[in-house]
Amino acid sequence: MQKITLLIHCKDQKGIIAAVTNFLVKVEGNIIYLDQHVDVEQNVFFMRLEGELTNPLISVASIKADFEQTIAHNFKMSWDLYNKEIKPKMALFVSKYNHCLYDILGRYSAGELNVEIPMIISNHLDLKPIADQFNIPFHHVPFTKDNKIEGEQQQIELLKKYEINFIVLARYMQIITPRLISLYENKIINIHHSFLPAFPGAKPYHSAFKRGVKIIGATSHYVTEELDEGPIIEQDIARVSHINSVEDFIMKGRDLERLVLARAIKLHADRKVMVYSNKTVVFY
Amino acid sequence: MQKITLLIHCKDQKGIIAAVTNFLVKVEGNIIYLDQHVDVEQNVFFMRLEGELTNPLISVASIKADFEQTIAHNFKMSWDLYNKEIKPKMALFVSKYNHCLYDILGRYSAGELNVEIPMIISNHLDLKPIADQFNIPFHHVPFTKDNKIEGEQQQIELLKKYEINFIVLARYMQIITPRLISLYENKIINIHHSFLPAFPGAKPYHSAFKRGVKIIGATSHYVTEELDEGPIIEQDIARVSHINSVEDFIMKGRDLERLVLARAIKLHADRKVMVYSNKTVVFY
Amino acid sequence: MQKITLLIHCKDQKGIIAAVTNFLVKVEGNIIYLDQHVDVEQNVFFMRLEGELTNPLISVASIKADFEQTIAHNFKMSWDLYNKEIKPKMALFVSKYNHCLYDILGRYSAGELNVEIPMIISNHLDLKPIADQFNIPFHHVPFTKDNKIEGEQQQIELLKKYEINFIVLARYMQIITPRLISLYENKIINIHHSFLPAFPGAKPYHSAFKRGVKIIGATSHYVTEELDEGPIIEQDIARVSHINSVEDFIMKGRDLERLVLARAIKLHADRKVMVYSNKTVVFY
Amino acid sequence: MQKITLLIHCKDQKGIIAAVTNFLVKVEGNIIYLDQHVDVEQNVFFMRLEGELTNPLISVASIKADFEQTIAHNFKMSWDLYNKEIKPKMALFVSKYNHCLYDILGRYSAGELNVEIPMIISNHLDLKPIADQFNIPFHHVPFTKDNKIEGEQQQIELLKKYEINFIVLARYMQIITPRLISLYENKIINIHHSFLPAFPGAKPYHSAFKRGVKIIGATSHYVTEELDEGPIIEQDIARVSHINSVEDFIMKGRDLERLVLARAIKLHADRKVMVYSNKTVVFY
Repeated sequence: MQKITLLIHCKDQKGIIAAVTNFLVKVEGNIIYLDQHVDVEQNVFFMRLEGELTNPLISVASIKADFEQTIAHNFKMSWDLYNKEIKPKMALFVSKYNHCLYDILGRYSAGELNVEIPMIISNHLDLKPIADQFNIPFHHVPFTKDNKIEGEQQQIELLKKYEINFIVLARYMQIITPRLISLYENKIINIHHSFLPAFPGAKPYHSAFKRGVKIIGATSHYVTEELDEGPIIEQDIARVSHINSVEDFIMKGRDLERLVLARAIKLHADRKVMVYSNKTVVFY
Repeated sequence: MQKITLLIHCKDQKGIIAAVTNFLVKVEGNIIYLDQHVDVEQNVFFMRLEGELTNPLISVASIKADFEQTIAHNFKMSWDLYNKEIKPKMALFVSKYNHCLYDILGRYSAGELNVEIPMIISNHLDLKPIADQFNIPFHHVPFTKDNKIEGEQQQIELLKKYEINFIVLARYMQIITPRLISLYENKIINIHHSFLPAFPGAKPYHSAFKRGVKIIGATSHYVTEELDEGPIIEQDIARVSHINSVEDFIMKGRDLERLVLARAIKLHADRKVMVYSNKTVVFY
Repeated sequence: MQKITLLIHCKDQKGIIAAVTNFLVKVEGNIIYLDQHVDVEQNVFFMRLEGELTNPLISVASIKADFEQTIAHNFKMSWDLYNKEIKPKMALFVSKYNHCLYDILGRYSAGELNVEIPMIISNHLDLKPIADQFNIPFHHVPFTKDNKIEGEQQQIELLKKYEINFIVLARYMQIITPRLISLYENKIINIHHSFLPAFPGAKPYHSAFKRGVKIIGATSHYVTEELDEGPIIEQDIARVSHINSVEDFIMKGRDLERLVLARAIKLHADRKVMVYSNKTVVFY
Repeated sequence: MQKITLLIHCKDQKGIIAAVTNFLVKVEGNIIYLDQHVDVEQNVFFMRLEGELTNPLISVASIKADFEQTIAHNFKMSWDLYNKEIKPKMALFVSKYNHCLYDILGRYSAGELNVEIPMIISNHLDLKPIADQFNIPFHHVPFTKDNKIEGEQQQIELLKKYEINFIVLARYMQIITPRLISLYENKIINIHHSFLPAFPGAKPYHSAFKRGVKIIGATSHYVTEELDEGPIIEQDIARVSHINSVEDFIMKGRDLERLVLARAIKLHADRKVMVYSNKTVVFY
């Protein structure tokens, strides 16, 4: 049986759930999981539905066309219907830090991530040996302030060539240009090494140490044009104390970065994240 | 507008969600929140729905009768429909420990708990002053091994008199008798001072200390005839280390007990807990 | 046997620990616990020592005089030696929020806090019934923008009269004046309802909701003239998600505020906190 | 300057800290960090001291001899003095699960672990490609119930040949024989995939699922002859709910296993763990 994931959002209205579930009955689909949320302030309705299609004679394509013309049209929905068997293609952008890269490739090799990783892009050569070790094509796209546009162009061509669905910045340390952001809206995941909105920008562990906080954090979010201001996908924290140096903060933070980024990748790959008003709805 | 909470469980079947949501449309109700869960192993369907009724001419009583004869009958459902405005009546059973009692009555007075507390029962007089301080009727029901049955009878009469809906054992330290358990099935909440199933029974902090664990816990659960084996509602933990004595464990544990019990009370009072196969479905 | 707590800080130098521990041997004291910390950046040494004096013929007063003239003088130490049996006197400042007040008075009544609470001060009468309920003198000190100086003067006189050692702002919601801060330097504990330095100032839960964070927090800190910028004593967090409204944030936050403030009070009362460079050394 | 770590335990007596710190002064050493603990129940004193030797003319060997004949002899101490620059040699035992192996080798390659990993031993060939990928010698030591003694003998010879200091069972899934345990007492670290003492033995995630717990855990401990009963080094937990299947427990558990094992390795490698009465003193 074909498994599907349906994501919907629209203005909140009476009868949406009834309409969608009736539609599923009509096309001989079973609901495996249904999650729904209403943002009362914004008056927006969100739904995520996992189902399976029991009649092989009714194709996914025909279901999509039918849904678009009836339900989606009536309720003015934004929606996507995914075939669960098709894994999204993910590009890794890295720079010199290796811990997130090791972690992601280890999980990928262990079969934990529901993605394909066709390639890695970096502005430095430092991490090429790791890409080689895991047999992932590595593309060196160096650039300076002066030729950043050319660098971006090269990145975009690679993303097209490999048909990349979403991008993960694994401690990439470079600011993404508006053009690339607009091509991958809510599809570029960054890991920031602080508990946002505390300590945005550079050297957050140093700032946290100076402030004398008792807890540090990490935040994964979608990249928008405002630095470290995009929709937050996941956050986690670790306790620190006076005995910890800045170096300890950085070391403890590595575990946070690894975990929080890996969770965000999983959530995104499993189509569990929806974005609205610079916030996320995350259906666990 | 009348707010309602609907809880359902039944054998998993095609079309349940569609039927229920269509029913809501029919009786002019809006769905505010819908949560659903399928226990795949047991093949059981669970649903919790919060809604509001927009037509004052359609009474809750008529809705209940209609639902029973149509949907509930067709799908062989176990179900309850609550009026959200009616607070459940909760009895507190205590013994000599005062910290959970202070915490619950403080929260109650601060308006945090969606319950009424018409009375407190204890086998000792130690905590009467606290009941007095908060103006809650306190009933002293002492008993020994030999007259436990009479004690239980007295408890049951008090529970009836006050029309108690559910019971909270706030470190009550006495074993509840099967008769009382059967009268309040899945309606007696206990707090056990360990991370069950580790350290059931007496003196769990001492056992945890002896074993050298690095984390202690507390568990709230419904009382069943098997001691500390009932359906778990909520658990939480705290870190300990070699510098902590048994007394430190006990002191840290008090915070866990307070919090975990208060959360369980809130979940139960808000009708967010369903029980099946000695496990709970908790719709947060 | 007399139990003592010794707190020391001074420029880091060779031989401090040896000198202090030799001194203890000389005055026939046992070390029960010794914690020490060196702030490498600032080159400052911190020590906390719990001991017991075995010879009743050697008085605490003579030990203090001896220590001052020898060890403290040689190493140019700032230090304090406390008799563990003497509980510090704590004043509560409250306004209209009752949850922290209930929690603190419940813990106090349950014997969990190693303090005396001789009185409560408030600018409103709302919480007087709670003070009455727990039999704590309640002083109503109202003031407006125009007569804040007079209000402060009245507060200071009450603090003197009751010989208050430290002040706890239990959601007091008023800005403390520089004069009072200077009289109680590092002795006024505030609870801020966010994970500082994120969301300082007013309405942090609303800001956190707007930003779409996945974790909220609370922070207890000593009050300094810079609002929400004082040395952090303790922080904790709770997970939130898209299903939580601002009201849910506030409700979850109440538990954080209670816990984090109670921990800070305990740490301060047990003389486990030392302040330096706007940070705390907390010897757990 | 030579950096050293000194670990001591002995019967608790007056004057130990003074004696040790005076000794450090005598051999021209600075104390960088000193942690001490007294197990009051057992009357045992523990100390961990990090220091640096400022006089290159006083050798570590002479310091050790001096310490043994004076301080250690007087107080009947068990003690070790480590040169911080010399990394312990760690052997990995694996079977078929790959996630802990990827994690450890990723951390090792990223320079996070203060160890050398000269080799990996496995009873299966499945993970050889990972060892190859990271260029670590892989020794296949298969055995059956009938020739377990020969297998063990081969393991012991490899451990000797590589001068292994401690062993890490990275989800090894085999019971270690008493002979090997006695050769590496408190030097074999296991990761158990439950919150011990809950769910010892096989299939803990399945048992946790069946019991309906709300939190799962992982435990790293030293291996003793009693299965899953050895001294606990570190534990951590993750929340689960009714929506999680056994497979979800297993997936979430992988993160716990990785983290908890990695922390235990770090603590052991940094000589921060001392064992006594089947418990650990962990100096963070």
